Amino acid sequence: MKVYLDNAATTAMDDRVIDAMIPFMRDHYGNPSSVHSFGREVRTAIERSRKKVAELLNATPAEIFFTSGGTEADNTAIVCGIESHGITHAITSPLEHHAVLHTLEMCEKKGHIKLSILDVNEKGELDMNQLEELLKANPKSLVSLMHANNEIGNLNDLNRIGSLTKEYGAFFHSDTVQTMGHYVHDMKSLPVDAIVAGGHKFHGPKGSGFLYVKKDKKIHPLIHGGAQERNMRGGTENVIGIIGIAKALEIAYEDMAEHQVHIEAIKKHFIQSLTQEIPGVSFNGLSADIDKSLYTVLSVSLPPSEANSGMLLFNLDLEGISASGGSACSSGATVGSHVLRAINHTPDRDAVRFSFSRFNTIEEVDYTVGKLKELYAVEA
Amino acid sequence: MKVYLDNAATTAMDDRVIDAMIPFMRDHYGNPSSVHSFGREVRTAIERSRKKVAELLNATPAEIFFTSGGTEADNTAIVCGIESHGITHAITSPLEHHAVLHTLEMCEKKGHIKLSILDVNEKGELDMNQLEELLKANPKSLVSLMHANNEIGNLNDLNRIGSLTKEYGAFFHSDTVQTMGHYVHDMKSLPVDAIVAGGHKFHGPKGSGFLYVKKDKKIHPLIHGGAQERNMRGGTENVIGIIGIAKALEIAYEDMAEHQVHIEAIKKHFIQSLTQEIPGVSFNGLSADIDKSLYTVLSVSLPPSEANSGMLLFNLDLEGISASGGSACSSGATVGSHVLRAINHTPDRDAVRFSFSRFNTIEEVDYTVGKLKELYAVEA
Repeated sequence: MKVYLDNAATTAMDDRVIDAMIPFMRDHYGNPSSVHSFGREVRTAIERSRKKVAELLNATPAEIFFTSGGTEADNTAIVCGIESHGITHAITSPLEHHAVLHTLEMCEKKGHIKLSILDVNEKGELDMNQLEELLKANPKSLVSLMHANNEIGNLNDLNRIGSLTKEYGAFFHSDTVQTMGHYVHDMKSLPVDAIVAGGHKFHGPKGSGFLYVKKDKKIHPLIHGGAQERNMRGGTENVIGIIGIAKALEIAYEDMAEHQVHIEAIKKHFIQSLTQEIPGVSFNGLSADIDKSLYTVLSVSLPPSEANSGMLLFNLDLEGISASGGSACSSGATVGSHVLRAINHTPDRDAVRFSFSRFNTIEEVDYTVGKLKELYAVEA
Repeated sequence: MKVYLDNAATTAMDDRVIDAMIPFMRDHYGNPSSVHSFGREVRTAIERSRKKVAELLNATPAEIFFTSGGTEADNTAIVCGIESHGITHAITSPLEHHAVLHTLEMCEKKGHIKLSILDVNEKGELDMNQLEELLKANPKSLVSLMHANNEIGNLNDLNRIGSLTKEYGAFFHSDTVQTMGHYVHDMKSLPVDAIVAGGHKFHGPKGSGFLYVKKDKKIHPLIHGGAQERNMRGGTENVIGIIGIAKALEIAYEDMAEHQVHIEAIKKHFIQSLTQEIPGVSFNGLSADIDKSLYTVLSVSLPPSEANSGMLLFNLDLEGISASGGSACSSGATVGSHVLRAINHTPDRDAVRFSFSRFNTIEEVDYTVGKLKELYAVEA
């Protein structure tokens, strides 16, 4: 049995997404910047995709810029947000994805900003008082705090953070890569200046993404060249990527509530079964708190085990089960997770992130719990 | 009849490229950074693609970095080349693509470099004496000069320029977007530090590209995040783009000589027929000089005509013929071509770029010349 429980790393593409992309590989190959008929039909498809994304987010098409993925979108929001708005101070947390953390660290190293990193408790909750103190001292900061953590699933309250940043006139960017396509983002009501998406996190193609930037917070481009994306990103558009991410988001919004019910049931069942079958199991961050974490992510902490220590992912893989240690982007066995370190997860215990999609089943969870039980029973 | 003569803007994808990509849409969806079986099979495919590209260019896999396209690759080479090597002066020409010109202008505006722009004559030939004088005065410059111009087809002598830059210890980047897949690039013998590719210029996918950087000229990343591309580009890889560009380059190298013969015959026939049928026709830059220009590009200058002035591309489009004014990236009717301006092309005459691929035929050229003859006969 092959069980894919690493959907926070990437998801299988939806067949309907693939079917929407293929005509733009086989037939409609014009350059969207060309004014002739070959170009115009592709331009129309791109702008239709932009309009669709904007509609779903309750935004305007002029606020949506297609990128090569969530990382490029995060980099653009941060680097160009800082430069375009003359920002000299930024606030983030140690739990952010490297697309945010490394980018901010690079900006600090270049001397463009001073970087403040919020304290978090052992559940990964942010110190909101500290955030307000920092904003009081540095009102025109860039604040970059993710919507949900990719490793431990913690959801941040964007409304609460956004209200604070608005009060102090800060620029608020949120890495929404893990929530896009899984939660509704209503940009008319959400007090966030910039959010991002990576298509492959919700059954779209890898190499596709977008950046939303609020109309009154315009920024300049990261990648310079032609006049594409309203002068916001040079380079011939990744047409199939744009068609694909828009279609994937459309499908995600159509069935979102239903999928949430399906996936939450899987997650609840997983928590129950693990608690029952593996003595000493616990859950990292807020990931066992259904209301305060991604319904797609469960971060499991397993009791010390000589047989499995450092080998657990490998042992699961041998049984056909794909899961992750930290995030996929740094999942090499030798590199520890900066998120688990920040919440003081003890290295004696193995941490595994299981992450779900609408393609997973209760049977797959039962199989996985069964295998985990065997792996931990060997030792007893 | 539909005739696509805008292959310098973008090309139709080769069916074999599409067939290589589709399994990575339908079946192999793992994240290449994941250590489990789903991830490993995709990692293997990516590294096989990198090895293939490296082999074709006579380079090492460690010198090849996949990007979202030629523009991102140019931006990375320039911005990060300047930063990583402490460069304070750059040399370029007014005929470069905006991916190079706008990027260098941005670096100058930020105060990172002083920018020198070479003189060109009315054929678009670079002043090589001036280049040497500038290098004498600023030996550690970044020199960015394209292999071939995308609008008028002029080929620059990379060996000659490269020898000069080497002599003075400059960093030599060449925008090779128009020649990659059409000419052999042997990086063991070519004295160039960085070259680039955009897959869609040689029957690969849009949104795919790569950057070659010589081993001893390492630069840091433009896009920060995970450890992808040996820490040179954060972000989950565009797997289908990578598979596609490598396959397209492989196919291009397999049949390169044969395709050059086929396409050159089309270009020669086009030059002959136009010269014969349209009195007063001339050719821009070196594009009618078979040995000194891209075999894929012919830039035609048509005599003043009241009926066609400003309407020629539109009139051709009505007849099913797709061609271009300047480059596709700035082909809006209202924006003039900076290349044609730089070589003093008179606005009285219409300039049209016809660009060819191995999918074009002599019949298509005859049809096009026939239509041009009609359009210009109306007036007589």
